[in-house]
Amino acid sequence: MAVLPRIHAPADVRALSRDDLDRLAAEIRHFLVQSVSRTGGHLGPNLGVVELTIALHRVFESPRDTIVFDTGHQAYVHKILTGRADDFAGLRQRGGLSGYPNRAESVHDVVENSHASTALSWADGIAKAYAIKGSIDRHVVAVIGDGALTGGMAWEALNNIAAAQDRRLVIVVNDNGRSYDPTIGGFAEHLDRLRTARSYEDVLAWGKRALRRSGPPGRLVYGALHGMKKGLKDVVAPQGMFEDLGLKYIGPVDGHDVGAVERALRLARDFGGPVIVHCITEKGRGYVPAEQDVADRFHAVGQIHPETGLPVAPSRFGWTSVFADEIVTIGHRRPDVVAVTAAMLQPVGLAPFAKAFPSRVFDVGIAEQHAVTSAAGMAFAGLHPVVAVYATFLNRAFDQVLMDVALHKAGVTFVLDRAGITGDDGPSHNGVWDMAVLRVVPGLHVAAPRDEETLRSALRVAVDIDDAPSVVRFPKGPLPEPLPVIDTVEGVDVLARTAGEGPRVLLVGVGPMAATAVQAAEILAAAGVGATVVDPRWVLPLPAALVKLAGEHDHVAVLEDGSVEGGVGALVAQRCAEAGLTTSFTFAGVPATFPVHATRGQLVEELRLRAEDVAQDILHRVRAGS
Amino acid sequence: MAVLPRIHAPADVRALSRDDLDRLAAEIRHFLVQSVSRTGGHLGPNLGVVELTIALHRVFESPRDTIVFDTGHQAYVHKILTGRADDFAGLRQRGGLSGYPNRAESVHDVVENSHASTALSWADGIAKAYAIKGSIDRHVVAVIGDGALTGGMAWEALNNIAAAQDRRLVIVVNDNGRSYDPTIGGFAEHLDRLRTARSYEDVLAWGKRALRRSGPPGRLVYGALHGMKKGLKDVVAPQGMFEDLGLKYIGPVDGHDVGAVERALRLARDFGGPVIVHCITEKGRGYVPAEQDVADRFHAVGQIHPETGLPVAPSRFGWTSVFADEIVTIGHRRPDVVAVTAAMLQPVGLAPFAKAFPSRVFDVGIAEQHAVTSAAGMAFAGLHPVVAVYATFLNRAFDQVLMDVALHKAGVTFVLDRAGITGDDGPSHNGVWDMAVLRVVPGLHVAAPRDEETLRSALRVAVDIDDAPSVVRFPKGPLPEPLPVIDTVEGVDVLARTAGEGPRVLLVGVGPMAATAVQAAEILAAAGVGATVVDPRWVLPLPAALVKLAGEHDHVAVLEDGSVEGGVGALVAQRCAEAGLTTSFTFAGVPATFPVHATRGQLVEELRLRAEDVAQDILHRVRAGS
Repeated sequence: MAVLPRIHAPADVRALSRDDLDRLAAEIRHFLVQSVSRTGGHLGPNLGVVELTIALHRVFESPRDTIVFDTGHQAYVHKILTGRADDFAGLRQRGGLSGYPNRAESVHDVVENSHASTALSWADGIAKAYAIKGSIDRHVVAVIGDGALTGGMAWEALNNIAAAQDRRLVIVVNDNGRSYDPTIGGFAEHLDRLRTARSYEDVLAWGKRALRRSGPPGRLVYGALHGMKKGLKDVVAPQGMFEDLGLKYIGPVDGHDVGAVERALRLARDFGGPVIVHCITEKGRGYVPAEQDVADRFHAVGQIHPETGLPVAPSRFGWTSVFADEIVTIGHRRPDVVAVTAAMLQPVGLAPFAKAFPSRVFDVGIAEQHAVTSAAGMAFAGLHPVVAVYATFLNRAFDQVLMDVALHKAGVTFVLDRAGITGDDGPSHNGVWDMAVLRVVPGLHVAAPRDEETLRSALRVAVDIDDAPSVVRFPKGPLPEPLPVIDTVEGVDVLARTAGEGPRVLLVGVGPMAATAVQAAEILAAAGVGATVVDPRWVLPLPAALVKLAGEHDHVAVLEDGSVEGGVGALVAQRCAEAGLTTSFTFAGVPATFPVHATRGQLVEELRLRAEDVAQDILHRVRAGS
Repeated sequence: MAVLPRIHAPADVRALSRDDLDRLAAEIRHFLVQSVSRTGGHLGPNLGVVELTIALHRVFESPRDTIVFDTGHQAYVHKILTGRADDFAGLRQRGGLSGYPNRAESVHDVVENSHASTALSWADGIAKAYAIKGSIDRHVVAVIGDGALTGGMAWEALNNIAAAQDRRLVIVVNDNGRSYDPTIGGFAEHLDRLRTARSYEDVLAWGKRALRRSGPPGRLVYGALHGMKKGLKDVVAPQGMFEDLGLKYIGPVDGHDVGAVERALRLARDFGGPVIVHCITEKGRGYVPAEQDVADRFHAVGQIHPETGLPVAPSRFGWTSVFADEIVTIGHRRPDVVAVTAAMLQPVGLAPFAKAFPSRVFDVGIAEQHAVTSAAGMAFAGLHPVVAVYATFLNRAFDQVLMDVALHKAGVTFVLDRAGITGDDGPSHNGVWDMAVLRVVPGLHVAAPRDEETLRSALRVAVDIDDAPSVVRFPKGPLPEPLPVIDTVEGVDVLARTAGEGPRVLLVGVGPMAATAVQAAEILAAAGVGATVVDPRWVLPLPAALVKLAGEHDHVAVLEDGSVEGGVGALVAQRCAEAGLTTSFTFAGVPATFPVHATRGQLVEELRLRAEDVAQDILHRVRAGS
């Protein structure tokens, strides 16, 4: 009889026999492959944490104990074990299961944010609060990947966790040796040594050393003795750099052996202070197409054929590919151009550049701050770095963009992929904040290309700006059709001019919203209202021609795929108000809310950003005379 | 004959005899105390790095070799040795020497940013660029304090530096055991053990271990042998967690022994790969009032009497003291309120709270990201954290404010000291970005109090907001006189109504600019233009009454001590444009530039933010009819 259908809550997992556990793991793997191949989602990471998550829910009692997942895309198994298996058909769909933990879904979910390296800080805060509130019997567990440990926040947290030896905090390192790409840096090599160097003989010798070093007899000695007697590798002991930080360490543990992980977690739970449990796992475990893939294409998938792992619909030629191609051309022309990324070489399209110029690409790990400031250093020394990241992750390095790059007038180009509404990845992946936030950065140039040719041209212009930072931002997904230019006004592209009677409307379409603006103009024309559609392409510094054009129209509508608060529309309005223009405005963009997970199309509709919505709003305003 | 007057460039330092070096160090100390006591400045840190900086300039050849100072306030000695001693009379004054490195001053200066923990990333970037450009004989040196190593960026950089063993990069850890407060955390304790545990016997034993461990004979073994023979502690050897990261380590070295530091630096320079040199220094060294002070009051000083160290003009009761007092009152009323700070317990005024509630205050080190996200964790577990930092440093944690706090609707209060124009600390200390940038954060409440009573009231309101983040921001310096309220309009304070003929002006004064707005109204009234002066106190969410009031006036002027780009004025203008109001606007605030170092008064004048400037601009606009 199948085990999975009997699991409705963590208590059901705790009640299982050892035999049932292995069966449960196999059933979960089968379920994940079948279900995620239909919906798309983060397949590889979750296949890697099946046993680990089962063990977690057997040793700890969520929600009394608190389990925090770093980069929540590894929480599918957790969702299954906490009674949400039946909801997986709606994964990442509007109204369905989120692809990340979600407090609205379950009392077992804590952190909805999917930016990496935060879990240890969350756990430290929660443990501090439990201590203050006298809930000293509540444990806090953070599950963090080896890749996320390269992020600076994790170091800040480790440092603080080590300073308080009385808090019941367990750090589970889910070590698969890769985040997206193989994990980078000195720390990764340290983990690698821990992972590979500990033969059984080593363990014995190391156990003796641990005993000798541990000083007065106590829990630690007991743990070491106990472990050695049982022939276990998992004893609580100081180890390498963790010891130097004052953190106890258990490991390495085979993360696919539920019993071994359970024993290690129980030891950690009962230790009474912060402990690291180092679990070795394999991303994509148990699914042959993923195990055989070297490029980590199963980290996140769209719909796939479950037997072969091949995509149902091959992905269309998109924005990322254009960047990938153009940056190689630029690299040939400009030997001083180098590329920097933060554990995202493949997803941002830098693989061809890395192949063409292997010594001119730097993957710094999940470390956006270092990516940005080291780029400032490179610019100081005469290079022109191109920092390619997802738009949402540049927020991690806002201070560095301002203080290290802009203050020093460094010629650094930021390429922001996934700018705008991203859709099914949920609130923390949307790249809707860049234009509003970056607006305060002195001297910054920002391009929002609308199609392939304007993207190529923006990149070429950006890398030639050597005395100030520049940004080129574009959305996720397939490329739109090119839009012909019918005229230019002081460098601003005019895309359409329609005839009409009465008040005339200026439509400013930013980036991919230029196409929406053209469609909206057609709807307005059909309703008898004439319009001019323009695309400034570069939104910072804002072309003065926009203010002039605004003065020649009766109403201005700015369409942007970003925050309407302080965005490009707000910028045009402020410049117009400064100039004494009293034109009325329609601001079409993303309001100051966190868009929920849904398709991009659904969100565009809900936010009233379709051409018909914008046209309707404008007509309403124009006819009301304001 | 005095040595210092003969020093005009690093080459002069390299030419000195051993005896002259000690004399030079003593002369520099005397010079620093005499000079900084007249101008104010960072006295303590620079007294601690006199010998270290002399040794740096003897071993490395700036600017061919590149020396990067973390938190540039420790670069005074560097300025003296690079020919700028004569300029110290104008330190931190308009047109005079900057308190930080400044590229416009000298080819020997690189990083002008004074936010902590950046130097290793700068150095990594510069070293990468030198490698690509084939300048493999150029060394890069980063000087970083032990406190700054607790910042996450430093970890990201160490991790990357360790991954490239062929770059000529020397990391000098200036370890005085304290940044502002004693350095916090597991890593600080590790440094402390390195500092104290290495008796000579230990060194010998450790040298043997290093030999045994180092495998095939080579440079490393030679270095260790060489060191042992000479009885030196400073050999290049793997050590503790640095070894685990793959970084070589020399130390600890007495940072006040020029010869010892020189030997260590030469060894590091010639090693051919990245090396850490661990120097023990004493903040305030050689100046009795600083050496005897436990509260680190000599980190940065105003004008002092050089003999006694006592301030010339006792500081006036300021904004920070009001927060310090009110938060204790709140702490008594609300046992769930806790305080979090980032190595700034004293400067942000949390000392009284720490004394009253020692278990409810958390200093996380120079780690703003961890401060913010651990606060989100505390809020999840039922506490209400108050995170108190300088406004400029919150930029370090923008992503965490957005993703960890706001997305999770966490009741966290941010108290931003030094918001607005700060003056003589230069571009990177100004707190002018908060209101513009935070505007995109969904659900955020932001208060900009204008005086003592509105500050107290804002704090009381903020800690009662438990389902969303809140911010209370106030400037550096003494408190202004309270401004009486003559009326309120839907919660907005009306501070003045003046009579006049023709068009009426609405003056919106944000925070301390409310007083300027009242004065500007008086000037306008004298010129026959009537005005209403209001202070919204809470600028986010923006009170709807402001739009209503704008509709009742012919011109709106918004005065703010922050970025005019996307600031409160831009927000009011956007709301008015949305509402179809076509009122004209004057925006008075800080443009998108980096204010240079000068007094606050000088900057206010240069930016045309005095009452007479604003009134003149408004009159010009109103009379021009726009």
